[in-house]
Amino acid sequence: MSPADAATFRDGGAPPALSRRRLFGLAGAGLAAAGATVACSPEGAAGGAAGVVPFRGAHQAGIITPAQDRLHFVALDVTTTDRSALNALFRRWTTAAERMVAGQEAAPGGAVGGNPHAPPSDTGEALGLPASSLTLTFGIGASLLDKLGLPRPAALADLPAFTGDNLDPTRSGGDLCIQACADDPQVAVHAARNLIRMGFGTTSVRWSQLGFGRTSSTSRSQDTPRNLFGFKDGTHNLKAEDSDLLDRHVWVQPGDEPAWMTGGSYLVARRIRMHIEVWDRTSLAEQEEIVGRTKGEGNPLGARAEFDPADFTARDPGGAPVIPADAHIRLASAEHLGGIRILRRGYNFVDGSDGQGHLDAGLFFVAFVRDPQAQFVPMQRALANQDRMMEYLQHNGSAVFACPGGLAGGGHWGQSLLDS
Amino acid sequence: MSPADAATFRDGGAPPALSRRRLFGLAGAGLAAAGATVACSPEGAAGGAAGVVPFRGAHQAGIITPAQDRLHFVALDVTTTDRSALNALFRRWTTAAERMVAGQEAAPGGAVGGNPHAPPSDTGEALGLPASSLTLTFGIGASLLDKLGLPRPAALADLPAFTGDNLDPTRSGGDLCIQACADDPQVAVHAARNLIRMGFGTTSVRWSQLGFGRTSSTSRSQDTPRNLFGFKDGTHNLKAEDSDLLDRHVWVQPGDEPAWMTGGSYLVARRIRMHIEVWDRTSLAEQEEIVGRTKGEGNPLGARAEFDPADFTARDPGGAPVIPADAHIRLASAEHLGGIRILRRGYNFVDGSDGQGHLDAGLFFVAFVRDPQAQFVPMQRALANQDRMMEYLQHNGSAVFACPGGLAGGGHWGQSLLDS
Repeated sequence: MSPADAATFRDGGAPPALSRRRLFGLAGAGLAAAGATVACSPEGAAGGAAGVVPFRGAHQAGIITPAQDRLHFVALDVTTTDRSALNALFRRWTTAAERMVAGQEAAPGGAVGGNPHAPPSDTGEALGLPASSLTLTFGIGASLLDKLGLPRPAALADLPAFTGDNLDPTRSGGDLCIQACADDPQVAVHAARNLIRMGFGTTSVRWSQLGFGRTSSTSRSQDTPRNLFGFKDGTHNLKAEDSDLLDRHVWVQPGDEPAWMTGGSYLVARRIRMHIEVWDRTSLAEQEEIVGRTKGEGNPLGARAEFDPADFTARDPGGAPVIPADAHIRLASAEHLGGIRILRRGYNFVDGSDGQGHLDAGLFFVAFVRDPQAQFVPMQRALANQDRMMEYLQHNGSAVFACPGGLAGGGHWGQSLLDS
Repeated sequence: MSPADAATFRDGGAPPALSRRRLFGLAGAGLAAAGATVACSPEGAAGGAAGVVPFRGAHQAGIITPAQDRLHFVALDVTTTDRSALNALFRRWTTAAERMVAGQEAAPGGAVGGNPHAPPSDTGEALGLPASSLTLTFGIGASLLDKLGLPRPAALADLPAFTGDNLDPTRSGGDLCIQACADDPQVAVHAARNLIRMGFGTTSVRWSQLGFGRTSSTSRSQDTPRNLFGFKDGTHNLKAEDSDLLDRHVWVQPGDEPAWMTGGSYLVARRIRMHIEVWDRTSLAEQEEIVGRTKGEGNPLGARAEFDPADFTARDPGGAPVIPADAHIRLASAEHLGGIRILRRGYNFVDGSDGQGHLDAGLFFVAFVRDPQAQFVPMQRALANQDRMMEYLQHNGSAVFACPGGLAGGGHWGQSLLDS
């Protein structure tokens, strides 16, 4: 490392390509890696470096951040009721998360720079990989509040049973969640795995889900991706650019209860198995009627372009609705739901096979809303009861987490709750 | 589409960025997409287009092709003993595979260009995605030969039981395999899924495995990647550039039995669960002794750089071997195994959690060898019996497939067998 590099690095002045490889190079050169990495504040690094998403802000990253390509979602159970132990873990997690998001190892010393006779403070599989737009989003489940004897927000009431649900308890619930999103799955897995590792003795993994091929864009800078039914998904998703709508539908506002959620959002996760083999034997015309859009361009039936408004009143010459009464986009529309909108941020998955000759494939649905009871529940009730697509779906996992606001003012994950 | 584009396209002259999106554009413009895609020969497209790996050659692609970042591996069972039905499927599969590798849809017409009252001939989720270096590699299991009353090659004898094996039959074996590798998981999944779809009635999925973060480089143009123990893996892997060694250790040679395997290779797959949580509590020094390399640079213990030769005779001042007697790289070395070498092409995986608080993570080991009995069996026996790393591993899936030679001379998958 040249002296100039060292100066840039030590003063926290945003080295443009700060990577784990570079940090490792420093350690390998015999420098005091621990001190050096501490001196390089992640906030500084986050400023302009490509592929680094700022960790601190008014809201948590990973919600309206343009959706990265890969997901590792982990739900954890807390094995203690000792608030101070939990608070200490949250503090350590926050420090590690802030480092990893900046492309650094989980802790000073890292995989190879610490005491060789102690376990390394980073697991090492992301050495040499860039930050890859990693975001880490933290959420709290109702069951944790119950364990700690804290009141649940009304918004965090249990979801009702929906028609057709076939929920697997080993894929549902959880005291805490960590949503790791990145453009490289190895970076997302590394981050989640290191946080899990740090939680030994205080938390254990309840369930975990990998995803690829994001199924919604969350920014107008992104094309609409396709789900495993082959259709563009989330055309009318709320986008990062829709500030007023986000305040109305996604962010918990000052004055909403409880105060510790101000600036936060509620994460609803649903593991939706898609019976792709049956779908694939359905005609194109039927698929398009079920969705209410064309498969190619993704325009609403009767319209021309993807982003054209859907005309739910249009009828064909025979008098039938052009967009069928049980079409997915009609039932999920704000028009049908009294103005309800949500921010979707889900991923496709294939988790091996089901033992019956088929792929275990589908959509890991993730949505962020200001109030699940007022937004997700009526929407899912309408879909579960009426959506013709339900014939090809089965919801087999479900969880809701309260994701507090961002840490612009300092502090650590969960602090607003535990200090409340 | 301009007339100039049409001319380039229709004469099969390798449009430089032929993608499904482009093809879809053609279909959307009302042109005869079916005819047009047939006219554009995939061989032409494969010539120089970025991200397109040639489908036909002396050997199948996906073996010494520089390892792509993502894997979707599928093992299938054959539900017929009618050779002509199977031959017809192999012919259809080959046509579809050749198209998809070139970035085209699985069949003319594709997701949206066919008869709207019939199921689409492509599932559509890769529309708009480039070829992404997709390779599709086809293999035949011993159980298929048994079903068809054909003799097994000696090389395809069942593997013996190894110490510590805990094989799950639902993750083992299979009559056929398709290895889909690509730089985009959605492209790999799309390809495997469409071939599965085309096999309905003749084949069914036995098991399926996704992987990320390739754990071996297969070309000197690639850095050595890291496995989920955080170590560089496969430093001394055979590489595409090692032509003479590949002829000796990987490719079935003329004169080897059976003749239908000439130019082919045997694929050994092992699903290796890695107990990463236990590993993570092990000291750096112990991890490095178990592997026999340093965790950072990846040099053999006692050497300086990753590619330095390992000195298995070196002793420390106390007289102990610098590379321990039970170190992984010693036991797996050609020196220890009488010259045995293999071509590794595996991937990391995380398949959710194990229900006991841990990630279900590990290495999906894939190796290509000229003779599993003479290469994989003695290597794995040595590792299973003596490798100190086995304490942190469990093999829970296993399969061997015969991957015939390439289709440079025309023809389709399995033809050399079924015509033999």
